[in-house]
Amino acid sequence: MMNEPASPTEAAIAVTPEHRLKDELDIVIPTIRNLDFLELWRPFFQPYHLIIVQDGDPSRTIKVPNGFDYELYNRNDINRILGPRASCISFKDSACRCFGYMVSRKKYIFTIDDDCFVAKDPTGKAINALEQHIKNLLSPSAPFFFNTLYDPFADGADFVRGYPFSLREGVPTAVSHGLWLNIPDYDAPTQLVKPLERNTRYVDAVLSIPKGTLFPMCGMNLAFDRHLIGPAMYFGLMGEGQPIGRYDDMWAGWCIKVICDHLGLGVKTGLPYIYHSKASNPFVNLRKEYKGIYWQEEIIPFFQQIVLPKDCTTVQKCYVHLAKQVKEKLARIDPYFDKLAEAMVTWIQAWDELNPSAAALSNGKKG
Amino acid sequence: MMNEPASPTEAAIAVTPEHRLKDELDIVIPTIRNLDFLELWRPFFQPYHLIIVQDGDPSRTIKVPNGFDYELYNRNDINRILGPRASCISFKDSACRCFGYMVSRKKYIFTIDDDCFVAKDPTGKAINALEQHIKNLLSPSAPFFFNTLYDPFADGADFVRGYPFSLREGVPTAVSHGLWLNIPDYDAPTQLVKPLERNTRYVDAVLSIPKGTLFPMCGMNLAFDRHLIGPAMYFGLMGEGQPIGRYDDMWAGWCIKVICDHLGLGVKTGLPYIYHSKASNPFVNLRKEYKGIYWQEEIIPFFQQIVLPKDCTTVQKCYVHLAKQVKEKLARIDPYFDKLAEAMVTWIQAWDELNPSAAALSNGKKG
Repeated sequence: MMNEPASPTEAAIAVTPEHRLKDELDIVIPTIRNLDFLELWRPFFQPYHLIIVQDGDPSRTIKVPNGFDYELYNRNDINRILGPRASCISFKDSACRCFGYMVSRKKYIFTIDDDCFVAKDPTGKAINALEQHIKNLLSPSAPFFFNTLYDPFADGADFVRGYPFSLREGVPTAVSHGLWLNIPDYDAPTQLVKPLERNTRYVDAVLSIPKGTLFPMCGMNLAFDRHLIGPAMYFGLMGEGQPIGRYDDMWAGWCIKVICDHLGLGVKTGLPYIYHSKASNPFVNLRKEYKGIYWQEEIIPFFQQIVLPKDCTTVQKCYVHLAKQVKEKLARIDPYFDKLAEAMVTWIQAWDELNPSAAALSNGKKG
Repeated sequence: MMNEPASPTEAAIAVTPEHRLKDELDIVIPTIRNLDFLELWRPFFQPYHLIIVQDGDPSRTIKVPNGFDYELYNRNDINRILGPRASCISFKDSACRCFGYMVSRKKYIFTIDDDCFVAKDPTGKAINALEQHIKNLLSPSAPFFFNTLYDPFADGADFVRGYPFSLREGVPTAVSHGLWLNIPDYDAPTQLVKPLERNTRYVDAVLSIPKGTLFPMCGMNLAFDRHLIGPAMYFGLMGEGQPIGRYDDMWAGWCIKVICDHLGLGVKTGLPYIYHSKASNPFVNLRKEYKGIYWQEEIIPFFQQIVLPKDCTTVQKCYVHLAKQVKEKLARIDPYFDKLAEAMVTWIQAWDELNPSAAALSNGKKG
């Protein structure tokens, strides 16, 4: 059945001997519990390094299955490493995962939630989500014109008649956004209205999100190129002490899309699927989301209209400019956006401190 | 096998008793040969009215299988009906099909090539392409923000978390662009380079092409709402006496997309698939296409940059404005665009003459 996750045996059978980019990619997992879910992913993830960001009570011990190579950061670690700048990292919210992006030393990041299991394709084969993300990231995007047969770089596909030849080289892909079988990523109102809806539709496609179009980026099953877009992958201020939750990935999605469009980078969505096992509580979600639900009616037009100046030639410069605009244009919605704009700047400072060579490059100096 | 067309029996088995919109939709078929291919489509098409546009030698007799309700127009008919304005209808090119759009009295058009057969979905079921197009046209589009689970109006799907609620009503769908299994719609260079490539990927999705994004519209398997967008569905000047061919549907696609974006109408692409049986000759295609291949490098940026003025409140007004811009901005590429711009105006005059009530409406009067 497509709508049941693959068992560890099935996943093991499907494994390919090759683990591409195993020394160039970190898997970032935010969690509050033991990582038993990794058992299922073992054939696909074991050769990769994990960065585990432990949320909540730092005195709790998180068990990681044997044989995985990992580093783990709890709140005490975050505070120690970032000092006063730790204020930009959310607490009691999976937004804390972005700390993992910052401390990684690799070019690529794959991040996944701990309630996501290995999905099966319609033939019953366990899907190696990571392998597909890597394919997506290593092949170009085509955001300037729509290709009706979807990803022209996929096997057996190409650009169709009428696709301008000058655009066929594509642009580098910065982000690969994967999808979810079983529990779809719905907001609280939709969860409440359609409690039994399950996603069983396996859409065998990857596509470039066109330039100028925003999308709701979900952080559950996401990969990106840190060198191309890392400093914009900030998941904002959510959780404890903040007026909203469940908008961390959305915030990052709006920011990265605007910056990718400006810098000529690509964002893909579609394959791979993971199996999302359990719907979160819609009542709790509603409490976290309700401000976001009306704020987004103003935030999205803000992001749709933003034009980054030509001299914003690095992700950092773009992001600091965005922060300035957030302060100017969104703070009138709620004082929260003032705080968020400041946290955005703090995030960039912390990023540059932990990634000095990238920071030097972004300032036009040699690293 | 998914990659073989359905047989007439298979198609008959798959038929649904209901034929939606059977009195409100015409099927337009351009052809130069006997329409034996209709046998396969009988269970799906027979209750609908056909408009056959016979291309080439008008003295030839086109055989239509028994039991179909149709009207047929050859070149003599076109000349008689349009008089001097017949010059805007192409000859010896499937672009002539747009004459059928003009003489239809129905709200919806489905147009299909006579080398397109009934495809099968991955379960082996014959696909009722027309039924899917009707579904697409009768449900709204969502062009202002990307929905990562594709068509939110499809069964079992919805808008995902982070999709603005103010945009969930969507906008009326004007165009439904279907795809092709087996022979993909490639240009001559790609056909030459990949003579054996076949499209076997069944992508179970329909999606709205985002506002501001152009796409290569193929006329092989296409449906639209005549009342919403009909006057912009002009397939240009191609074939005999013209310097290019195989850009008829592309031209229409650029024009309709720009106008739909301006008027707040939706364009969908994806399902349904038809089975495209035979690749056209790549050498002949190259001769027809080569000017288009370099012209499109300038034409597409032209369409990407065009801004229609606010007082263009009807399709006709938009289209006449486009014609003016084509004359101003594209005629320097080649005198052909002067002729094309004039033909665009002639087309609108002919459309309004044959559709007097729509013309009156478009001028703000009662029909």
